[in-house]
Amino acid sequence: MKVEVITIGDEILIGQIVDTNAAWLGRELTRCGFEIAAITSVGDCQDDIIRAIDHAFERADILLLTGGVGPTNDDITKHTLCRYFHTALEFNDEVLQNIELLFLNRNIPLNQLTRQQAYIPENCRVIQNRVGTAPILWFDKDGKVLVSMPGVPFEMRTAMGKDIIPLLQERFQANEYLQRSYLATGITESALATRLAEFENKLPPGFSLAYLPSFGYIRLRLSAWGEDRKPEMKQLGRKLKQLLGDHFAGKGEKMPEELLGEKLRKKQLTVATAESCTGGYIAHRITVVPGASDYYEGSIVSYDNRIKEELLDVDPGTIDVHGVVSREVVEQMAINITGKLKTECGIAVSGIMGPDGGTKSKPVGTVWIATYCDGRILSREYNVGRSREENIERTANLAILQLLKMLSRK
Amino acid sequence: MKVEVITIGDEILIGQIVDTNAAWLGRELTRCGFEIAAITSVGDCQDDIIRAIDHAFERADILLLTGGVGPTNDDITKHTLCRYFHTALEFNDEVLQNIELLFLNRNIPLNQLTRQQAYIPENCRVIQNRVGTAPILWFDKDGKVLVSMPGVPFEMRTAMGKDIIPLLQERFQANEYLQRSYLATGITESALATRLAEFENKLPPGFSLAYLPSFGYIRLRLSAWGEDRKPEMKQLGRKLKQLLGDHFAGKGEKMPEELLGEKLRKKQLTVATAESCTGGYIAHRITVVPGASDYYEGSIVSYDNRIKEELLDVDPGTIDVHGVVSREVVEQMAINITGKLKTECGIAVSGIMGPDGGTKSKPVGTVWIATYCDGRILSREYNVGRSREENIERTANLAILQLLKMLSRK
Repeated sequence: MKVEVITIGDEILIGQIVDTNAAWLGRELTRCGFEIAAITSVGDCQDDIIRAIDHAFERADILLLTGGVGPTNDDITKHTLCRYFHTALEFNDEVLQNIELLFLNRNIPLNQLTRQQAYIPENCRVIQNRVGTAPILWFDKDGKVLVSMPGVPFEMRTAMGKDIIPLLQERFQANEYLQRSYLATGITESALATRLAEFENKLPPGFSLAYLPSFGYIRLRLSAWGEDRKPEMKQLGRKLKQLLGDHFAGKGEKMPEELLGEKLRKKQLTVATAESCTGGYIAHRITVVPGASDYYEGSIVSYDNRIKEELLDVDPGTIDVHGVVSREVVEQMAINITGKLKTECGIAVSGIMGPDGGTKSKPVGTVWIATYCDGRILSREYNVGRSREENIERTANLAILQLLKMLSRK
Repeated sequence: MKVEVITIGDEILIGQIVDTNAAWLGRELTRCGFEIAAITSVGDCQDDIIRAIDHAFERADILLLTGGVGPTNDDITKHTLCRYFHTALEFNDEVLQNIELLFLNRNIPLNQLTRQQAYIPENCRVIQNRVGTAPILWFDKDGKVLVSMPGVPFEMRTAMGKDIIPLLQERFQANEYLQRSYLATGITESALATRLAEFENKLPPGFSLAYLPSFGYIRLRLSAWGEDRKPEMKQLGRKLKQLLGDHFAGKGEKMPEELLGEKLRKKQLTVATAESCTGGYIAHRITVVPGASDYYEGSIVSYDNRIKEELLDVDPGTIDVHGVVSREVVEQMAINITGKLKTECGIAVSGIMGPDGGTKSKPVGTVWIATYCDGRILSREYNVGRSREENIERTANLAILQLLKMLSRK
């Protein structure tokens, strides 16, 4: 079933915000068995929105609009939809009640501008916004569907997850969509494709395998339609996992930091980090997971080399002999951080993220990562690339995955 | 001059990557005086790409394509452009030389697949890729322009900045585009709009003021066309800065962490951070700026409360009496981190990012931020919101801006 997404707002076109809604929708809808044909971003302009809707309905059955539904003048989506569907706004009491309740809970007085949000197009079905004031509007047209929802990520995600996706599945999917995902690490996409070529060629009709490479890992997604394929799916999944061998790092759609969190929680272990070149980004990635405080204790970010000696007790002689970007230094960092923060596990990184600081023997992108757990230590050198932001991203993933794999082997 | 952007790749539609290219292009092009009419993302499918090009050329004069230009089979942009422009591929020696040089510098042998990248459409102008293998292709058509470039962010940004934008300006802009940006903080968008209403209403014809709100700050952009408006622009800019008063935090298009870095470097000060709820994200934001090691020393991420006592010497009694999310605790953290890391300045945060952990008196979103510099301390309570990721983002911006403003007042 083809879906097109239209995100509305000048702020997207002028690059003031990165359109994370589009990526989230793409990921969730694909995961639920819908195919995204295109994503279009347009400004706060009625003609542009109508043009985009017309183009999208040329081939999509489902059209999802986000944004332009706030209480201010430049939020014009509902007026545009009235024009498109040749209808007018009417006052909806239930929407007002929903808004009033929300304001009551937040202890804010309701103003006239916000009251306006209870005016909605006559011919649509309303889905109440569970966490915000702008209602979700559902339109049916010649067997196709258009849904307008807020652009605020938290509101959009709540509406999609709790209301819109279940309704779309009920309406458009007679069949069950099956899928299994596997996270692979320590192998390039081309090497993985070679390794899996035979498996892929021999897949039964209706099954497909997608490669989703990211910084430092590749996600593989095996999918098929129909509940009757479940036994086959199970068998193929098992086979795929086997073929991945030592490169298998986890099952499902979770991020590396979520997989690590689950593993630590299951094994009742705690972890701390000692970061140099990633400057706190590994700590951030671990703590962005709700509930991370159950297993994450903290970090020492030793951006300056002096801090490595003073707070992490790295031996100055080791730094002199081997340099700060070395196996010896990250191993001391990993061991010492677990001692200082009294954790079982430790992650330590030191590297050169660029654009400057590279040398002939240690060019930009050189990184040493050490992971430690209960007396065992693993340290590896990586070369992550040339762009600073991507290097930080890749190093964080590699470090998190290195500890995850170490704990999985235990 | 209207621009449309088409980003190509299945990985965008399935949400595997967030399309940061679109946001970057929107920002840069707007800054250089071009207007973005729409951004469309399509998959690796010739028909879809051609349909998107047709739709875009209905009203845009400049069409920028990113992605689908790698050496593998699913990279089909150049074949699609041959079909669209009724032309064929031909071998281009200069492109091969550029690729060979690149491989020589990276010390990697050139393979047959990569050699294929030297085949380019006959009727286009080639712009050599300065940092990658896929050439940039420039097509002229009935006074309009289509440019195809790589989707790799580093390559795309280099090509746009060094070659494509200057060429587009030469071709399409007779007039000079003037603009001045101001970063405002500590004020809501609606309050700022009220304060600036008279200034905005009295703007001379041709001048416009845009509001670009972000998490924790608002950027204002004043713009006009024509070199002859420079004196007026200067005067209006000065007036605007004056109107912002105490809410003015910086000039230009820079991020808060870049402004802070400049200020610290200028004043020859160093900074360290003590983070609780942001879990290393402030450190990450500061260190993502190239050269941050000149003024940033490091961080202690005390995610667990025990670490606040053990590594940051926060008094357990203070925690007992006031709680970890309190003025008293962040002030101790800020002072102690500067002592431990021997810096002049310190930033400390403690708060409740959600989704859990809120109480009646300290709901999710409550944050205390303390900034310290040479004996002076400033601490403030904020309420940042309800979604975990956005709360972390907003808290980091507020903390960085709080120190920046403190240093600016000195």
